[in-house]
Amino acid sequence: MGKFLLLNGPNLNMLGKREVSIYGSTTLKDIEEQVQKVAIENDSSVDCFQSNHEGELIDRIHEANGLYNGIIFNPGAFTHYSYAIRDALASISVPTIEVHISNVHKREEFRHQSVISPVTEGQIVGLGIYGYELALLALMQKTRGEK
Amino acid sequence: MGKFLLLNGPNLNMLGKREVSIYGSTTLKDIEEQVQKVAIENDSSVDCFQSNHEGELIDRIHEANGLYNGIIFNPGAFTHYSYAIRDALASISVPTIEVHISNVHKREEFRHQSVISPVTEGQIVGLGIYGYELALLALMQKTRGEK
Amino acid sequence: MGKFLLLNGPNLNMLGKREVSIYGSTTLKDIEEQVQKVAIENDSSVDCFQSNHEGELIDRIHEANGLYNGIIFNPGAFTHYSYAIRDALASISVPTIEVHISNVHKREEFRHQSVISPVTEGQIVGLGIYGYELALLALMQKTRGEK
Amino acid sequence: MGKFLLLNGPNLNMLGKREVSIYGSTTLKDIEEQVQKVAIENDSSVDCFQSNHEGELIDRIHEANGLYNGIIFNPGAFTHYSYAIRDALASISVPTIEVHISNVHKREEFRHQSVISPVTEGQIVGLGIYGYELALLALMQKTRGEK
Amino acid sequence: MGKFLLLNGPNLNMLGKREVSIYGSTTLKDIEEQVQKVAIENDSSVDCFQSNHEGELIDRIHEANGLYNGIIFNPGAFTHYSYAIRDALASISVPTIEVHISNVHKREEFRHQSVISPVTEGQIVGLGIYGYELALLALMQKTRGEK
Amino acid sequence: MGKFLLLNGPNLNMLGKREVSIYGSTTLKDIEEQVQKVAIENDSSVDCFQSNHEGELIDRIHEANGLYNGIIFNPGAFTHYSYAIRDALASISVPTIEVHISNVHKREEFRHQSVISPVTEGQIVGLGIYGYELALLALMQKTRGEK
Amino acid sequence: MGKFLLLNGPNLNMLGKREVSIYGSTTLKDIEEQVQKVAIENDSSVDCFQSNHEGELIDRIHEANGLYNGIIFNPGAFTHYSYAIRDALASISVPTIEVHISNVHKREEFRHQSVISPVTEGQIVGLGIYGYELALLALMQKTRGEK
Amino acid sequence: MGKFLLLNGPNLNMLGKREVSIYGSTTLKDIEEQVQKVAIENDSSVDCFQSNHEGELIDRIHEANGLYNGIIFNPGAFTHYSYAIRDALASISVPTIEVHISNVHKREEFRHQSVISPVTEGQIVGLGIYGYELALLALMQKTRGEK
Amino acid sequence: MGKFLLLNGPNLNMLGKREVSIYGSTTLKDIEEQVQKVAIENDSSVDCFQSNHEGELIDRIHEANGLYNGIIFNPGAFTHYSYAIRDALASISVPTIEVHISNVHKREEFRHQSVISPVTEGQIVGLGIYGYELALLALMQKTRGEK
Amino acid sequence: MGKFLLLNGPNLNMLGKREVSIYGSTTLKDIEEQVQKVAIENDSSVDCFQSNHEGELIDRIHEANGLYNGIIFNPGAFTHYSYAIRDALASISVPTIEVHISNVHKREEFRHQSVISPVTEGQIVGLGIYGYELALLALMQKTRGEK
Amino acid sequence: MGKFLLLNGPNLNMLGKREVSIYGSTTLKDIEEQVQKVAIENDSSVDCFQSNHEGELIDRIHEANGLYNGIIFNPGAFTHYSYAIRDALASISVPTIEVHISNVHKREEFRHQSVISPVTEGQIVGLGIYGYELALLALMQKTRGEK
Amino acid sequence: MGKFLLLNGPNLNMLGKREVSIYGSTTLKDIEEQVQKVAIENDSSVDCFQSNHEGELIDRIHEANGLYNGIIFNPGAFTHYSYAIRDALASISVPTIEVHISNVHKREEFRHQSVISPVTEGQIVGLGIYGYELALLALMQKTRGEK
Repeated sequence: MGKFLLLNGPNLNMLGKREVSIYGSTTLKDIEEQVQKVAIENDSSVDCFQSNHEGELIDRIHEANGLYNGIIFNPGAFTHYSYAIRDALASISVPTIEVHISNVHKREEFRHQSVISPVTEGQIVGLGIYGYELALLALMQKTRGEK
Repeated sequence: MGKFLLLNGPNLNMLGKREVSIYGSTTLKDIEEQVQKVAIENDSSVDCFQSNHEGELIDRIHEANGLYNGIIFNPGAFTHYSYAIRDALASISVPTIEVHISNVHKREEFRHQSVISPVTEGQIVGLGIYGYELALLALMQKTRGEK
Repeated sequence: MGKFLLLNGPNLNMLGKREVSIYGSTTLKDIEEQVQKVAIENDSSVDCFQSNHEGELIDRIHEANGLYNGIIFNPGAFTHYSYAIRDALASISVPTIEVHISNVHKREEFRHQSVISPVTEGQIVGLGIYGYELALLALMQKTRGEK
Repeated sequence: MGKFLLLNGPNLNMLGKREVSIYGSTTLKDIEEQVQKVAIENDSSVDCFQSNHEGELIDRIHEANGLYNGIIFNPGAFTHYSYAIRDALASISVPTIEVHISNVHKREEFRHQSVISPVTEGQIVGLGIYGYELALLALMQKTRGEK
Repeated sequence: MGKFLLLNGPNLNMLGKREVSIYGSTTLKDIEEQVQKVAIENDSSVDCFQSNHEGELIDRIHEANGLYNGIIFNPGAFTHYSYAIRDALASISVPTIEVHISNVHKREEFRHQSVISPVTEGQIVGLGIYGYELALLALMQKTRGEK
Repeated sequence: MGKFLLLNGPNLNMLGKREVSIYGSTTLKDIEEQVQKVAIENDSSVDCFQSNHEGELIDRIHEANGLYNGIIFNPGAFTHYSYAIRDALASISVPTIEVHISNVHKREEFRHQSVISPVTEGQIVGLGIYGYELALLALMQKTRGEK
Repeated sequence: MGKFLLLNGPNLNMLGKREVSIYGSTTLKDIEEQVQKVAIENDSSVDCFQSNHEGELIDRIHEANGLYNGIIFNPGAFTHYSYAIRDALASISVPTIEVHISNVHKREEFRHQSVISPVTEGQIVGLGIYGYELALLALMQKTRGEK
Repeated sequence: MGKFLLLNGPNLNMLGKREVSIYGSTTLKDIEEQVQKVAIENDSSVDCFQSNHEGELIDRIHEANGLYNGIIFNPGAFTHYSYAIRDALASISVPTIEVHISNVHKREEFRHQSVISPVTEGQIVGLGIYGYELALLALMQKTRGEK
Repeated sequence: MGKFLLLNGPNLNMLGKREVSIYGSTTLKDIEEQVQKVAIENDSSVDCFQSNHEGELIDRIHEANGLYNGIIFNPGAFTHYSYAIRDALASISVPTIEVHISNVHKREEFRHQSVISPVTEGQIVGLGIYGYELALLALMQKTRGEK
Repeated sequence: MGKFLLLNGPNLNMLGKREVSIYGSTTLKDIEEQVQKVAIENDSSVDCFQSNHEGELIDRIHEANGLYNGIIFNPGAFTHYSYAIRDALASISVPTIEVHISNVHKREEFRHQSVISPVTEGQIVGLGIYGYELALLALMQKTRGEK
Repeated sequence: MGKFLLLNGPNLNMLGKREVSIYGSTTLKDIEEQVQKVAIENDSSVDCFQSNHEGELIDRIHEANGLYNGIIFNPGAFTHYSYAIRDALASISVPTIEVHISNVHKREEFRHQSVISPVTEGQIVGLGIYGYELALLALMQKTRGEK
Repeated sequence: MGKFLLLNGPNLNMLGKREVSIYGSTTLKDIEEQVQKVAIENDSSVDCFQSNHEGELIDRIHEANGLYNGIIFNPGAFTHYSYAIRDALASISVPTIEVHISNVHKREEFRHQSVISPVTEGQIVGLGIYGYELALLALMQKTRGEK
């Protein structure tokens, strides 16, 4: 019913491998498979991509135009300064939901500001890895609504 | 399976009655019934409360302690300055998810800061009235996980 | 010819009772009667309401919608932080004029900023209690102009 | 009964000639004549002066001392930076009311600050060209009160 | 010898019921009884009032005028933004001492600023619940001094 | 083919006479003649005006409306604070290009902000006196494009 | 029952000698004797030290470690910038109460910030010279509580 | 007569493909060909390079040293935060002109600051795609001047 | 022995005529004659000029180049924002001493900053009208030193 | 006719010994002798004191009360942060003139702010070592005026 | 005895090739060989990597986990904004020492802030290329200490 | 081969005596002996001085001129505000290395800024007491390089 892109930014490849006591032992691969499973149950599909390179994320966002019904995007630390990624999202017409695993508002000052948020549909923050799944639900609901 | 509180702050009683071209014609009552319907389908229940009075919201938050498995909370404009509500939430041990219907990061500068966020589990922002439903899903998932 | 609401916020019930050397001995009741007298002379009427409770002011603003041709509003100290009242005013379509008795720009720094002003028609500041009367004149003139 | 000065600052000579869709087709001459008409009806008189030159406005303010019972002053953009005009007003003992046609608090950030306000009696903002008339009423009322 | 008002703001009704490990098991009722006991030992009396409602606190402050020799006031989180309470205190002539149980200067940034302090006699901060007793001592000493 | 105004603000009459080691020996008159020469080669004409008086520049901008196809404007130090000139430019419909001879971003902090830029077509900065010529080219190209 | 140090910073030796109309005619010696009198009545003792030299205050704080049950400290103007004194207090384990005679929050902006407060037990501000006595009471109560 | 590099940063590959109503249908390829055409007419040549990768732009800037007479550079969103690109430009001795197609001073706040400008010759802003051509003219004029 | 210019900015023509209780009854003419008297006693001469017009002051500064050995300059309120006057002073090679009659650092915040100071030799502030005389002494001493 | 104190703060003992190319070879002793010479010529006397110790300067200021007709004070770097010295000056009734040898407004940002200025009579800045002499003249003139 | 990684960020490949008068003629290769030589003398080894690509540095930091006893890292301009590199360092458990060749605190404002420093062991700044060697010494000493 | 001064500021005499769990049991005396030992091994010598008095540190810095080849300096809390020490270091020509034992960038906000750094050769931060030794190595290397 829909085709979605799950995009993860810098350091998210380290999930489940670092600071396990905080983030748990779920890896990025686990998350991707779980989101894909939920998609399939809803007659949808999800492509996954992670990169530590700002330029590769921008390239991928450009290519997404016309190809996907929505993007689930955790920009990692690029959230706080990559105006280039912001412009990339603004240049396409695919609705994007920004996801953060932890509640960034409980953490360092610099994590309270997102330069990405103004060009996204909305944000899901602090709800753990379940936030990715909720973002998919929201995009699928939106896709249905627009048909 | 769980008992939840749907709490709405100032001016949300005007939903569906004002600025219909922007917010649509869904009323707060519609939202409350929809969230309750989803709760029942999941063997849960939801109590609803709205007030334009900061003090009434604080009283209700205090009473929620030990009574509910979670709070879905749209603090309206109190989001941006009510440190009293923040302290109320900090004084209880019920997990709370902050919901905003519109993407506040696309709006006026003062709406970019939430004094509530640091004491909540997380936030769902900009996903329309569907955000309330997602918040319920997240709280139910959390309740399951903790059993 | 028109129906208007005279709304006064926190501590304005103390007018004429406190700091008489500064504010004079005119009480809020005197002001209300004077504004009503001018209204009657112009085939109009004025309802009056004062409260120290932010929530009651918001409730009253909501009810004003469709009922009045204009609101004369002195928000007292809520001027400087009540985004909830700001949102209440934004949610109705009744033109509102903000009134301050003293010249707030001669006073403490925090009184120089109004979070209410951007959602009002205009402001009358520092012209004493006569400012309420001028606000009524402006609203009546506006009502005439729109007919 | 009183003698008043209507003072207009830079660019107000363009009223009615520019951005007619926003400001209407009323010219500065129309305004001056209307304010003079109201004055005459109240046994008063109004002199008018407009200049785009900061120095000419200062000269005129100096000369006003002892000559007028009040000044109606729209300082235009000088509102936001002319400390020289502020000092000129502070150096005379003629009460001055600051007038702005549009609601400056709905416009650009820099228009929210007035360096003039602290040395005036009060301000009338956003009530259109009718604000000039209200300022005259306030000054005449003040003149009466002081006799 | 004197009549005093013990005023507590939002969330202080939760004392002894929440975060016992931090705040201890002393309840607000315990504090009120202890302060009343010290008053009686000094031929004085203390009335007690707590509310989570800003408006109720303002109403109570207005009524205190002429009735009490002093107010012991812990404004809770209203400390940081309620200019309405500030104005209420400024409108009466009863000396007020601001009390905070914890050392707010060791806590979050927003707790370092009090909008209330400039209109109080003084502040007692961080000395635990004993601070209320010290405030009573100071007010009684002041009452004695003024006779 | 077009009629243009070359406008220079305060202190630019000193070009070639002061700090020759930095600015070179080209005078304002040299610049004006060179720009006029280029205009003539393109079947266009250029009028020239320089003033150290803010009010004279405003007057001249007002008069330019309907008379010129474009303005080449170096506002000198007025760039950084003359909101009156900004409003003057906003009140006319003649496209204006802001020119600065030196790269202001390499100089003092206060020179990094222009209050004029938001109401111009664009800016040419740091390209020496050749920048005036480029501005003329851009205005002529725009004039052609609009025919 | 306890041994305490009364520490006074720069300019406090001038008490009673300067600005008598504001601060009264009580000298520092009077204060020291009064605090010592109260101590003796409670089976305690107080040593007194004043200096205008930051280094001497630091030396004295170092020596206080293990010697006193508490420090009553009015740091004078060092309150606002002496991070060295702050570190000295942090390096010892003697509880310290910060005392200010006047309500610093009614005075100049720079007096609103204390770099000392975060390393003290608490503060007593604006309660006149009686504040020293209250600080002693609080320290004695604390000493009792810890036994 | 000269050899130049036309460098474009992130998202400029989307020109003519996105937001056509705003930016027009001219593609980056069109721009590059037009600039090359002008170069050839002046016995010069232009190499073109675009990348969304900050590192690739830095590499290319390093290689440009000694190879080109000038760089025409639109850094896209890197303008606002890439101190690495700034350092790259500072490390070579090729004159660079910064170009922005739109008038960034009319857009979001963050676009008003350029970290690149202080290390460039100058800037051409808001003159549309014609700005690239003007930059080439300026660099060629500079090349001539230095011979 | 030297030729000097005494330059006074806006509102200084009002000296001795306004706020006599503060500024005394000395007029600008008195000051000018006193400074000229001192000059003559030292085989020097002083020309005097006052204007409320920024542009006239700039013109006069330009003309001063090569004509005077020094300028005594009280820029009045232009001190705080006239970057145009600053640039005028920077464009000539005549040493200038900035004089303020009152101690501006005891007055409003905006008077603490001078945009003129960085381009002057030095400043004499708060020493009353005698400050003008001291400035002349300093300039004469400098003139002697340079011969 | 008068008795004055010449007070110099930290590092001024290094005058003439360091950075001779900038400050010249005049030593602090030379300055002190020159100021004393001028005093004697005017039937006055000057005591001199320099210290790198903040506390010693405070002690000396306290002792000056009643002893001197004025203080000439160069606080060196204490100018920018010693609120303790500020309070010391405020606690005595001897008029003080602040002197800085160099034009601090041409130097680092932190040197632009003086915490001392608001409690002095005035300031003489940037006029070299001659500034000390001018300060003496001003104090003697003031002493004469008060007799 | 230990295995270390020498990591250099953007533009450091230009060392010895650019601005030789400032940085000297030592190339990055020279530095790498010198550090490796010192390592070998201490029975240790050093791998070297430089990149202008933020993503490549992040990848390399991830791979370093478990492989090295420490990282010597000069992040170049990424120091000031790359929160992504900061997170990468935080995600591994290899101690890192930040090195800057020049004293960044003597340079532009933006170079005074490091977003990297809070996640490193420490910093060595301004000691030239010898700083790399000292960092190796510190890491080897730390490795020894932990065995 | 060289003669060096090891200078320690306020509270560093408490090393090894306070907060042993954090700072370890090494005392200042241990550090001084270790640094002296390393110096002797390199045919050098080190004098040691610690003080809590800003003035004494300044005196000692002045005396160091011409006497030492370098200074190893931990200014303690003076780092953050002592512009007097900064000026003292600037007034001598002995190279100074600033040392901090802990990583100040992981600590409170106020510790992130050093007013001393701009006048030192460089800084060694967060490398524990070994940082003193590294500073000696750097100074000796510099001394060798200059011979």
